[in-house]
Amino acid sequence: MKVIVDAMGGDNAPQAIVEGCVLALEEMPSLNLILTGREDSIFAELTKHQFDSARINIVNATEVIDMAEPPVDAIRHKRDSSLVKGLRLLRDGEGEVFITAGSTGAMIAGATLIVKRLPGVRRPALAPLLPTKTGKAMLIDAGANTECRASYLAQFALMGSIYMRKVIGVKAPRVGLINNGAEAEKGTELTKEAYKLIEQMPVLFAGNAEGRDLVSGDFDVLVCDGFTGNVVLKFMEGMAGTLLGMLKKELKSTFRTKLGAALSMPAFKNLKKSMDYTEYGGAMLLGVNGGVVKAHGSSNAKAILSTLRQAAGFIKGDAVNVIKQEISKVAISD
Amino acid sequence: MKVIVDAMGGDNAPQAIVEGCVLALEEMPSLNLILTGREDSIFAELTKHQFDSARINIVNATEVIDMAEPPVDAIRHKRDSSLVKGLRLLRDGEGEVFITAGSTGAMIAGATLIVKRLPGVRRPALAPLLPTKTGKAMLIDAGANTECRASYLAQFALMGSIYMRKVIGVKAPRVGLINNGAEAEKGTELTKEAYKLIEQMPVLFAGNAEGRDLVSGDFDVLVCDGFTGNVVLKFMEGMAGTLLGMLKKELKSTFRTKLGAALSMPAFKNLKKSMDYTEYGGAMLLGVNGGVVKAHGSSNAKAILSTLRQAAGFIKGDAVNVIKQEISKVAISD
Repeated sequence: MKVIVDAMGGDNAPQAIVEGCVLALEEMPSLNLILTGREDSIFAELTKHQFDSARINIVNATEVIDMAEPPVDAIRHKRDSSLVKGLRLLRDGEGEVFITAGSTGAMIAGATLIVKRLPGVRRPALAPLLPTKTGKAMLIDAGANTECRASYLAQFALMGSIYMRKVIGVKAPRVGLINNGAEAEKGTELTKEAYKLIEQMPVLFAGNAEGRDLVSGDFDVLVCDGFTGNVVLKFMEGMAGTLLGMLKKELKSTFRTKLGAALSMPAFKNLKKSMDYTEYGGAMLLGVNGGVVKAHGSSNAKAILSTLRQAAGFIKGDAVNVIKQEISKVAISD
Repeated sequence: MKVIVDAMGGDNAPQAIVEGCVLALEEMPSLNLILTGREDSIFAELTKHQFDSARINIVNATEVIDMAEPPVDAIRHKRDSSLVKGLRLLRDGEGEVFITAGSTGAMIAGATLIVKRLPGVRRPALAPLLPTKTGKAMLIDAGANTECRASYLAQFALMGSIYMRKVIGVKAPRVGLINNGAEAEKGTELTKEAYKLIEQMPVLFAGNAEGRDLVSGDFDVLVCDGFTGNVVLKFMEGMAGTLLGMLKKELKSTFRTKLGAALSMPAFKNLKKSMDYTEYGGAMLLGVNGGVVKAHGSSNAKAILSTLRQAAGFIKGDAVNVIKQEISKVAISD
């Protein structure tokens, strides 16, 4: 299997990206990689490691797209960027999945313009996995589409369900529609209409999900518009940090609690691990004609390794083709 | 000062409500209370405590509105309910604030139908205080208005700002508009239009706030539509519980961490306290012609006491009259 990696995206590029790639090559014998970016910088990082050079190709790209650049402009004008070159390689079948830790907006715009939507898909959606009380759940859409129609949400339900089944191995993923109440008649015009459409989709629709269900473990796929998804995802990141920060401050307040904290450290580490995005890999962009994964902007080598594991799962699950087939079977009006 | 309390609302009524009221009478010498509900049940609870009977009046109400009842129907048909009777007493000037731990929907419907909106207020909004890294911030609207216009959001900004200034004592509350990005041009049609309107309000508008800013401490008032606010609030409640639950499980896993946990206990207790809604009182309903406060449905006596403290602050800050005056000065079109 072949994965294309944007070596220049994210806060710690190219160092962390290259290191994560080398770790993945060690772990997965059938993996081959293409790295896009400044050849000399990538090469300089690679020389720090031992690896099988036959399994890594470098494709030179002289430009880098910044986080702050307007996405569509950046894609149109920076044709020699690591992101655009990587997406073109994916489109041309040079790899099965493309990974970047760079700008989310540019990745979505680029994937839509270069890789293109799968036939019948209304809108691609950003779909990270979130930690829950019992495991993990997919949030879809986490921010690709600020304004949504009900038909988009119905397709998000289907694509998310396929991903959880084929890639994560959940036999019958329970799909929930994020809403402001559990009853079917609750919600905005959008969610009320989406409720009716999702009922007709070939998914296990478990009804409306409330905010608490994002972590309750009662749902495997949580469907919402990209505005709500963006707010929720960023709130989660902020809150996990804030809570652990508040706890740390409390623990430092007396000798007794300091000692207690030292003894409790393994438990904190395990909790941090289960809340840690580096363990969860990146957010998938579902609905485009190829695997596209957004790793966290602050990804370290371990996070890149996790994202490459996720890419391997995506390839094994044949998620793109299954989504392509199943979407084409379900007519969506509007 | 006189506060009206629905003695029958919430999971622990009337026991916890009555106990909280007695605690409040002890703490606040100038407080007088009217309790609405089944006279015999309230009396049975009161006899368990020592209190100054001259400071508590009971107004008999034979009916109770259930959490599951359709709000408007319940208000129209259960005219002898503790909620309807309490709101009528507020309307008639028998008290300055009304508190209930019962159905949020029925409270909002009842307050709008009986107490009425303040002149010029487009929509009342539900406004709880949330714990942040540095203190607390107001979320407005947390669920009273599922679909909003930009003009509602602009008024939420003003009402929230007044509350934080007059009741909480923040000199210049920083108002943020919850959005899917920090830049002014980000967002839905609703947030883009609201951005322009809030800029014209007599508040310290600090621009767009992202999900993480709900806890960052960089904003004092966080404005959003009631759909987003409802999802975020319920997510927060779920996530705090889930995180602490996960930590507890981890701490129980080895002898070492068990010992550590025992020593760390004071820190956990303090953290739990700062995350605890019982310390924060209830959610205000701002924009109606009187103080209306929703205590948490699972309120215990301590939570009722906190809510009564909040009611006292609301009365001292004269929030209803200040909102009335300031809203009338700001013309809102649409």
